[in-house]
Amino acid sequence: MDDMGWGDLGVYGEPSRETPNLDRMAAEGMLFPNFYSANPLCSPSRAALLTGRLPIRNGFYTTNAHARNAYTPQEIVGGIPDSEQLLPELLKKAGYVSKIVGKWHLGHRPQFHPLKHGFDEWFGSPNCHFGPYDNKARPNIPVYRDWEMVGRYYEEFPINLKTGEANLTQIYLQEALDFIKRQARRHPFFLYWAVDATHAPVYASKPFLGTSQRGRYGDAIREIDDSVGKMLELLHDLHVADNTFVFFTSDNGAALISAPEQAGSNGPFLCGKQTTFEGGMREPALAWWPGHIAAGQVSHQLGSIMDLFTTSLALAGLTPPRDRAIDGLNLLPALLQGRLMDRPIFYYRGDTLMAATLGQHKAHFWTWTNSWENFRQGVDFCPGQNVSGVTTHSLEDHTKLPLIFHLGRDPGERFPLSFASVEYQEALSRITSVVQQHQEVLVPGQPQLNVCNWAVMNWAPPGCEKLGKCLTPPESIPKKCLWSH
Amino acid sequence: MDDMGWGDLGVYGEPSRETPNLDRMAAEGMLFPNFYSANPLCSPSRAALLTGRLPIRNGFYTTNAHARNAYTPQEIVGGIPDSEQLLPELLKKAGYVSKIVGKWHLGHRPQFHPLKHGFDEWFGSPNCHFGPYDNKARPNIPVYRDWEMVGRYYEEFPINLKTGEANLTQIYLQEALDFIKRQARRHPFFLYWAVDATHAPVYASKPFLGTSQRGRYGDAIREIDDSVGKMLELLHDLHVADNTFVFFTSDNGAALISAPEQAGSNGPFLCGKQTTFEGGMREPALAWWPGHIAAGQVSHQLGSIMDLFTTSLALAGLTPPRDRAIDGLNLLPALLQGRLMDRPIFYYRGDTLMAATLGQHKAHFWTWTNSWENFRQGVDFCPGQNVSGVTTHSLEDHTKLPLIFHLGRDPGERFPLSFASVEYQEALSRITSVVQQHQEVLVPGQPQLNVCNWAVMNWAPPGCEKLGKCLTPPESIPKKCLWSH
Repeated sequence: MDDMGWGDLGVYGEPSRETPNLDRMAAEGMLFPNFYSANPLCSPSRAALLTGRLPIRNGFYTTNAHARNAYTPQEIVGGIPDSEQLLPELLKKAGYVSKIVGKWHLGHRPQFHPLKHGFDEWFGSPNCHFGPYDNKARPNIPVYRDWEMVGRYYEEFPINLKTGEANLTQIYLQEALDFIKRQARRHPFFLYWAVDATHAPVYASKPFLGTSQRGRYGDAIREIDDSVGKMLELLHDLHVADNTFVFFTSDNGAALISAPEQAGSNGPFLCGKQTTFEGGMREPALAWWPGHIAAGQVSHQLGSIMDLFTTSLALAGLTPPRDRAIDGLNLLPALLQGRLMDRPIFYYRGDTLMAATLGQHKAHFWTWTNSWENFRQGVDFCPGQNVSGVTTHSLEDHTKLPLIFHLGRDPGERFPLSFASVEYQEALSRITSVVQQHQEVLVPGQPQLNVCNWAVMNWAPPGCEKLGKCLTPPESIPKKCLWSH
Repeated sequence: MDDMGWGDLGVYGEPSRETPNLDRMAAEGMLFPNFYSANPLCSPSRAALLTGRLPIRNGFYTTNAHARNAYTPQEIVGGIPDSEQLLPELLKKAGYVSKIVGKWHLGHRPQFHPLKHGFDEWFGSPNCHFGPYDNKARPNIPVYRDWEMVGRYYEEFPINLKTGEANLTQIYLQEALDFIKRQARRHPFFLYWAVDATHAPVYASKPFLGTSQRGRYGDAIREIDDSVGKMLELLHDLHVADNTFVFFTSDNGAALISAPEQAGSNGPFLCGKQTTFEGGMREPALAWWPGHIAAGQVSHQLGSIMDLFTTSLALAGLTPPRDRAIDGLNLLPALLQGRLMDRPIFYYRGDTLMAATLGQHKAHFWTWTNSWENFRQGVDFCPGQNVSGVTTHSLEDHTKLPLIFHLGRDPGERFPLSFASVEYQEALSRITSVVQQHQEVLVPGQPQLNVCNWAVMNWAPPGCEKLGKCLTPPESIPKKCLWSH
């Protein structure tokens, strides 16, 4: 899911309790309270999901500035490199047919097209549903069916910013149901349902608008919850539920800059999207596979969105590529035997390892939320929260003496351990050793998010000529992308 | 429960998920996400539970200073007035036998003894388990069995402050099980299980110590969870489960001043104990009555701890006293038919109506957490949280223009509605009308928490002579109690 927070589901304590289908999915399967995205921002997190590799390896980061988040706006030049092997590419070897529904976000130029990277079908868009644009300074975002665009947001695919009405989730649901129906009895299939109704500007279709106690954001969640219920029901109806592994998670924490109208909840955790505090990267995560994953379980395995890559390969009888570092674990021992595996969680912001968690201890090597300049302009990633010396507005270097928190006693990262304590010393020693191992062998990928160019925007996507919707790009002027967060 | 927060149970989103028995109780019954204590502090909240009346009516408040919390330390002179009718007194008319296990906190002088106010049995103590004291400046708190003390905390009933070990919860569990076994087939019974292991200094018995991911506070929760499981199991074993209404809740929010080692979690809510923000008064609340309350329900009824008074009377076929104002609602329509009843929640701090909630809107008439002086001394009721103009350290008067929050969209009270919005105007108008009705007929009770006197402490409780544990009280010097929060 897109910008959905840890605290957004009833089963994770959301007070309005408006996700009966997802709560049931949890009750019938396994819930992970300690599951992480690979980045506090959308594009890098999604690239990590599909490659099983940290953004620092797969190139979804920037070196334009230290510790800055970057993503794939329309003017980005880069995208997913051909050298990366994506999950659907690999699953082909086991006969899988793959579809992505919704937001791709791994680059929108032709060479980055999802059907060039292993997917067999696509319905959705390459970028966020920002807009509307005037198609002069900036084109509206295209919506694709497979190889070609079939329209643009705010044109053929309307989103009413005033009322919040858009029927996109319904379209995405139908795409998913149709694909499942077509594939379920023919080929093994991989469906990547990447809907974006919970990303600002949030939207919902008419039957859901105004139905939530939580406002428009809640309406979007309710529609997604309803859709997941319908997909699981279809799997039952088709008698393939016991043969289909379903996982629900999100790309980063709730975008508190858009709160309260357009953002979700990170529950008891600190800050949100864009930050490497828990609110930025700890995610709701539910696994469902009737007859295989026992009902009603909670796993305290430290999990990562990158594990879905390795786990999916394992389910297909495949092994991950051996010629590169893979960060994802095979979670099947956790899912099927309730085992716990030791592993670190690394929290990167752009090119910088900001923090690492091992067991219950999290060490912050660098802290900041955003710059004073941004903050004074009203950009607040931690509204209502302020932990002195932790939620800083200058980039603070703690590499010599990291701030360490015990996430069990202090999930909100409010009380750093005393530097003098035995607990601090022991935790530091264990985490330092794991971080050194990680850094010694790390080969950063070619950074993809450094160069921007207005000429590469979605002026004339494939298929535009059939629709008479080709626009003329401006002069090509490559320049460094400006990443301020 | 004592100082347990909304976010402390797995079913309310606590990440460690260490309350399987309470989570099961919720799954088998009804969960209330919008349930409130009657005060952000223990004594007034408990007095309200047992009288069905706000502390401002039953006398559990102070007029020594404006908007100050007060309770019943050893030196308090007041307690529950004879004029108040307590739940066990009333239940007697329907043949109920009543027992209190644990903390009474409604006054420790002889006239306030629980057996003088309707309880038939008591095992526990009149005050918090603070200590140890030297029995010179201040006596240790006595533990009573029925009319007489049987020892004192830190003497016959040890609490190891260093290790956190105490077997009190086990004793309290056994008392509860024995009472249930004795009464279940003879008389209808009311058991008030008021354990205090989660109040700082938190404690647990040896088998639970060190078992929680959350530290010592979590050990205490785990032992309580285990105990609740054993009680529900006994009800099943005795075949009285379908004839026994069980309700689980807490007296106020988690005491964040004691975080992280000795305090719980208020989930996504603002601040904690001592405050009238949601973290101070919104509580976990579970109702269980197999065969009557359908399993797996969530009720969005605005509930209050005072409702347990009225609801319990209704279950016994009784009606509340008609000669006084009763604030508790009969929740049976919510519990049995899923109905929702309109009602306000009033948030008092001492003599002052600080805030009121109606539907989803909460209006703050006064805000503060604590004084600058206290705050600078390190007393922080909102660690890591800071909402500008809301979590103030001076007592701010908003009665002319209340701060209003929408608790569905903004459960964390971070984004006050714009004064100019239609939503603000409409909510204000509705809340103002309800508050005026409330205040027009309000007759404050005689304040019980104004006078303190070292001579009234637990020097020579009844039964002390048999144990050779009577101490000599100092000279009687009544003085105004000092309430700084």
